[in-house]
Amino acid sequence: MIQVVNLGLRAFADAVAAQGAEVVHVDVRPPAHGDPVLVRALTDLYRADQETANAEVLRRLDQEVPYVVDVRPAKDVVPGMGDRMILHAGPPIAWDAVCDPLRRSMRASVVAEGWADDLAGAERMLVAREVDVAAANEHDTVVPLATALGPSMPVWVVDNPAGGTRAFAPLGQGSGDVAWLGRESVAAIERLVFLRAVAGPMLKDVVARLGPIDPFAIAAQGVQMGDDVHMRVQASTGLLLRSMLPGIAALDDAVPLAAYLSANHLFFLTMAMASAKALTLSAERVPGSSIVTTMARNGTTYGVKLAGDRRWFVTDSPPVEAALFYSGYGPSDAAPDIGDSAVLELVGLGGAATAGSPAVAAFVGGSMAEAARVTGEMRRICAAESTRFKLPTMDFRGTPLGVDVRRVVETEVTPRVNTGILHARDGAGQIGAGVATAPLAAFREALLALAEVR
Amino acid sequence: MIQVVNLGLRAFADAVAAQGAEVVHVDVRPPAHGDPVLVRALTDLYRADQETANAEVLRRLDQEVPYVVDVRPAKDVVPGMGDRMILHAGPPIAWDAVCDPLRRSMRASVVAEGWADDLAGAERMLVAREVDVAAANEHDTVVPLATALGPSMPVWVVDNPAGGTRAFAPLGQGSGDVAWLGRESVAAIERLVFLRAVAGPMLKDVVARLGPIDPFAIAAQGVQMGDDVHMRVQASTGLLLRSMLPGIAALDDAVPLAAYLSANHLFFLTMAMASAKALTLSAERVPGSSIVTTMARNGTTYGVKLAGDRRWFVTDSPPVEAALFYSGYGPSDAAPDIGDSAVLELVGLGGAATAGSPAVAAFVGGSMAEAARVTGEMRRICAAESTRFKLPTMDFRGTPLGVDVRRVVETEVTPRVNTGILHARDGAGQIGAGVATAPLAAFREALLALAEVR
Repeated sequence: MIQVVNLGLRAFADAVAAQGAEVVHVDVRPPAHGDPVLVRALTDLYRADQETANAEVLRRLDQEVPYVVDVRPAKDVVPGMGDRMILHAGPPIAWDAVCDPLRRSMRASVVAEGWADDLAGAERMLVAREVDVAAANEHDTVVPLATALGPSMPVWVVDNPAGGTRAFAPLGQGSGDVAWLGRESVAAIERLVFLRAVAGPMLKDVVARLGPIDPFAIAAQGVQMGDDVHMRVQASTGLLLRSMLPGIAALDDAVPLAAYLSANHLFFLTMAMASAKALTLSAERVPGSSIVTTMARNGTTYGVKLAGDRRWFVTDSPPVEAALFYSGYGPSDAAPDIGDSAVLELVGLGGAATAGSPAVAAFVGGSMAEAARVTGEMRRICAAESTRFKLPTMDFRGTPLGVDVRRVVETEVTPRVNTGILHARDGAGQIGAGVATAPLAAFREALLALAEVR
Repeated sequence: MIQVVNLGLRAFADAVAAQGAEVVHVDVRPPAHGDPVLVRALTDLYRADQETANAEVLRRLDQEVPYVVDVRPAKDVVPGMGDRMILHAGPPIAWDAVCDPLRRSMRASVVAEGWADDLAGAERMLVAREVDVAAANEHDTVVPLATALGPSMPVWVVDNPAGGTRAFAPLGQGSGDVAWLGRESVAAIERLVFLRAVAGPMLKDVVARLGPIDPFAIAAQGVQMGDDVHMRVQASTGLLLRSMLPGIAALDDAVPLAAYLSANHLFFLTMAMASAKALTLSAERVPGSSIVTTMARNGTTYGVKLAGDRRWFVTDSPPVEAALFYSGYGPSDAAPDIGDSAVLELVGLGGAATAGSPAVAAFVGGSMAEAARVTGEMRRICAAESTRFKLPTMDFRGTPLGVDVRRVVETEVTPRVNTGILHARDGAGQIGAGVATAPLAAFREALLALAEVR
């Protein structure tokens, strides 16, 4: 293997890498840009007992196995779910600060829940605080993009028996004219009603017939088949649906459900998210670790949490860079990064698995070498490698696992998150997809707080 | 890109390639081992008008688009299918020479067709020539491994509108205790009855509801998802079944069909084979080409045909090398190479697409570099590259397409065919899988015959 070791100036390493050779870049810049407070915090945090806490967190993220055991309305299972509550992605946020696509999605949900007759009525209720609005992560739940999850909506129930945790995520709404993409059309509201009235009860039957589902066994196969299991879940969805086929065939009047599933190549996404959350919930019970256990965005702010610490460290949500826009749209139309799906990047999927995904490669320049670079950046800031998710394009090496806030602050490399892009203003829905780079500030704050506690 | 150009001694090139560098090997051995008759034939055949015929064959193999339009009993659609006829893979063969797994499969088919009450009766009929036994390829049909296709069995009907051809292949029988793997158990016979009575009519309805299926559009996606579309069709099967889901849900009592589909990760295989055959049928109408249009094995002999020539060039069927055996089995248990599925290798799939398949890599040594070598060998003997099947692991370069008998004879590299392995004697069924190397002798005979004709 030809290998180049590069010291200092990154541009040279990039030039060598562009020639196809493997480059080990040794960063001789001072860590954390030489900021004395950060350097002192980093020095404190590179002690041996730090590694003990981290090792336990990494073990939980890598070894525990989540299982889908049920599909239920959120109000029946999600802890603390109120009768008039809407859950959203990212850190807690006040109505005034909510971004446009999430406002639309919330209005659609208020109508679908039957609390208001129309969107104007929904708007009035939200402005008047007649609806509780809460961060899904505070309720052991994760939701993708601009999802607004009401109490009647069906969720995947995911148990992590080894960790003793249970997590939730809504059924995916599908593509096109749907609320989680920031749409509030009649069709988008009807899709929510369909999920509650048809898909939820039927998929509950299908799961009961199939028995507990092991989503990460599916995801591990998906990674071998070009899924990053975030932006792309095509293969995993196919494997899941094939296993569900007898259960679907046993239903009466299953054609509408089948049509929804057949058109929904992202169906596996939320199941994977709930599974990842079941692991991070276990990981975050370990105090004093420097491994990130929450990374979530609401389209306005970006929040990070560490294991054993209830606090959110929050900064502005970044734009989605390295993006491909649908025809007629560009960066000026794009809402900032939004969604809880970055939980996948914390367990070795999404950005961490980009090197294996030809489909995601299209969003980062088109070549597999560029896709490998995204995974390579994640490897610089992760503390371990997954033993379940293996990259064929990297000789079956495990994906990077466990974002270490020390490495993030030290290298100033932040996690790469593969995600969709929503229109910022006009309710057009999804207008592209790309890779978002997490903002450094939230990680710096988290690091300083961790050093203080210790 | 580090590149090594190697002259002459291949062992040195292999050593460099093992270090991870790209090697261009220039073979300075005399072509065709310097055999004067073959060298003269090759000299004759490298004339300009040869390229004209080849270009038209390659255009048909690469550009024409096959569509699945129906599912019908073989007797209703397969040309020349007799009332008491069994079709098998490979060149025509007399009963006495038929290999053990194919005999078992034929007996199972005779019972399933209702011509005999039991296997002993089936054996008597076959020995007494009361059943016609014919090569599927002579009836525009291709069958995998040891399939014995009776007239009542349902087949995919595949039209190639641009070429004006129509080809057929049976529905896949699934894994395990099934006749196409050389089993003649009660369960294997019941599976054949199920295909005739249940799966065939129901899948006819599903295809009618879905409209014409474009299998090579599915296969092109499958290649992006780690399918070689021969040994591995997991992703393609998932994509196909997702598209069929509404049609399946619309059926009454579809649970048995769904159970069969859910357990059948190879379901797409025969659809792909019939599609490939629809293209080779068009290609073989071009006279005087040196591109191989048939490559098929019956477990005893291996046959090759060229475009525009009705003759089979036949030699002994080879063992399947580079194989992984199921626990407890080894090379001495293995039947020789069998099946018509090598038609896939003629259109840029199977061995030609191995470089993109982590699953197939396991059968050729385990690393993606070794998988790439299989595709590389195919590239040496192919005249073109597919514009529809692209390999992500080779910067989206097309798979090698169009096996040129001149290159095969010249380089003495024969096609690599990814395939399953059946037990040679005891009816155990499938005992492994691997890569078979086609025997050179049949290609030499085909080349000499082509030179003679011109």
